[in-house]
Amino acid sequence: MKHQPNIFAVIMAGGIGSRFWPRSREKSPKQLLEIIGNGTMIQNTVRRLTGFIPEKHMFVVTNKVQKSGVIKQLPQIPVENIIVEPVGRNTAPCIGLAAMFVNRLDPEGVMIVLPADHIIQNDQEFLRLLDVGVRAAYESSSLVTIGIKPDRPETGYGYIQIDEEPGAKNPYIDRGVYRVKTFAEKPNPHTAQRFLESGDFLWNSGMFIWRADVILNEIKKSLPETSAQLMSIEGSLGTSLFEQNLERAYGVIRGISIDYGVMEKAEHVFVLKGDFGWNDVGSWDEVTRITEHDEHGNHFEGKVIPVNTSNAFIHSTGKLIATVGIDDIIVIDTDDALLICKRGASQDVKEIVDHLRRKQMNEYL
Amino acid sequence: MKHQPNIFAVIMAGGIGSRFWPRSREKSPKQLLEIIGNGTMIQNTVRRLTGFIPEKHMFVVTNKVQKSGVIKQLPQIPVENIIVEPVGRNTAPCIGLAAMFVNRLDPEGVMIVLPADHIIQNDQEFLRLLDVGVRAAYESSSLVTIGIKPDRPETGYGYIQIDEEPGAKNPYIDRGVYRVKTFAEKPNPHTAQRFLESGDFLWNSGMFIWRADVILNEIKKSLPETSAQLMSIEGSLGTSLFEQNLERAYGVIRGISIDYGVMEKAEHVFVLKGDFGWNDVGSWDEVTRITEHDEHGNHFEGKVIPVNTSNAFIHSTGKLIATVGIDDIIVIDTDDALLICKRGASQDVKEIVDHLRRKQMNEYL
Repeated sequence: MKHQPNIFAVIMAGGIGSRFWPRSREKSPKQLLEIIGNGTMIQNTVRRLTGFIPEKHMFVVTNKVQKSGVIKQLPQIPVENIIVEPVGRNTAPCIGLAAMFVNRLDPEGVMIVLPADHIIQNDQEFLRLLDVGVRAAYESSSLVTIGIKPDRPETGYGYIQIDEEPGAKNPYIDRGVYRVKTFAEKPNPHTAQRFLESGDFLWNSGMFIWRADVILNEIKKSLPETSAQLMSIEGSLGTSLFEQNLERAYGVIRGISIDYGVMEKAEHVFVLKGDFGWNDVGSWDEVTRITEHDEHGNHFEGKVIPVNTSNAFIHSTGKLIATVGIDDIIVIDTDDALLICKRGASQDVKEIVDHLRRKQMNEYL
Repeated sequence: MKHQPNIFAVIMAGGIGSRFWPRSREKSPKQLLEIIGNGTMIQNTVRRLTGFIPEKHMFVVTNKVQKSGVIKQLPQIPVENIIVEPVGRNTAPCIGLAAMFVNRLDPEGVMIVLPADHIIQNDQEFLRLLDVGVRAAYESSSLVTIGIKPDRPETGYGYIQIDEEPGAKNPYIDRGVYRVKTFAEKPNPHTAQRFLESGDFLWNSGMFIWRADVILNEIKKSLPETSAQLMSIEGSLGTSLFEQNLERAYGVIRGISIDYGVMEKAEHVFVLKGDFGWNDVGSWDEVTRITEHDEHGNHFEGKVIPVNTSNAFIHSTGKLIATVGIDDIIVIDTDDALLICKRGASQDVKEIVDHLRRKQMNEYL
């Protein structure tokens, strides 16, 4: 075993992000948008890793409609590293597929699996923790997941309980790498409060670190059918047959999350305690929470004239927007569609997208 | 004196209607817009009189920027009947100027003076009352104004107190033509309530009926300077010199309302009791009050997807508008500007227009 592992990034960029309608559309989902600050979310995800992981070791898993957007936004990543899933089948097949690509280059290569659409404010602390995680994952042949130190009793995330007992079972505890005691589903408010107060529950962020050979082996153990379907096309990887083989395999492969399908069944799972200003930016309300605002609680992008207006988040792409007597509102204006949403209600934005689908108003999807 | 007077209409269409921003603009003020139902407000004002007054007896007083719009919308009115004021000087000069035009055709002609931007729901009752007013104004050589039976303690209008005592002083009382006791300014809420309960106060609608010679004479008595300025250009009426003479006269003429300048000082003023579904449509809130709505209190014009939305008035000219968790709101979307206004606060829309003027954002005015 080498002392310095090869490090790879696998950036998962297949989400539709319908909660960011009307800015997010099928062709321009959340990860391809400039939602906060400069650069799109996927560009910032890649920028954060630059210097830590060479571009030729960066993979992006996306889908057909987003492929050209991904290539355009990330010219530094080799086109052959853009992996296109024929259909979305949740995270387990996605990660297994990417692991095949890494495995071909280096079976002991360590993959850092990251969603393309999360915000991380403290890059330095994030990279420090990745470094810790990479070493632990490499040496221990274990699955490592990144948990986030909670700052509120959030009911929208799954939780991970850590085991802080030192001992022979955990040689990495001094480095801040903990054993996972349990994975917990999204809690009710009461339970979430208890989790927060206990101090040993972390948010499940959906970020993972492991060797390619290790995760492929874990998938084989826990999801033998999925593993067999992926392995059946491994031989054609890099050939002209791969695309059609992949299409056939994905036609029958079972959609299942890596958490449910693998992590919760695996024996050796470690978790890192992330505290680097993480936000999964799951809704417009999340965006309003983390953007700067003036003394009236307002945040404006574009031309806005506010009269008696407070706690308003307004995004305009060109039109002049004037508000009168308005409080606690989110306004997102795009060329062809406008959203006006009460703050606190933005999880219901997906109802609009559901409506558009039902009515086949495809031009707005 | 003839038995059947010639009847003329004078439609005042010089208002800017900044409270209807962003739909109303300098070139397309309220009276030229289709705010409610079919047809623009000025078109409906003219349509209502059609059959009662011949088109060649209809005059419109407007301004330079609105002239072409008026001509385009009212092709049935002779172009020489479109009177263009060089600048707005309130209603007294406007009415005096129009009276000169009518006087030239028939000094005893009866002018019905109407704002171009009011809504009247019961045309038949309106015309019946005009007929009563025309006869009274013609026979009595008096000023006749139209009051509106109030249905709420409105503080936004002036009031007219009627004198219901029969007797020699009022030979027309049996026809529903009353002597005016007093004109009252816009009241405070307490006084408005008292006015409403008294039963003898009417809203001052700004609609008038009188003979051309009578009003010119009254202006001469009460506003001798204004009268002299107008008379000085009367001789050039119909000649190529008129426009520049008018420009010169309006350069110095005093801006004053007909109510304050003439009506309140005149001796013989009658008032009619109007009860024909009148609304001056003074603000977006007024529009929401009189438009139809569904069981959630919503009124939508254009493509709207409402989620948990109630009491919303939404006008879209093309864009899809989706709302989530919104109550009590007015949304007016136009090509280049969007208004989002709390219901009940629409009188403050003019603050936006003031802001646009101060900042010289002329493209939005």
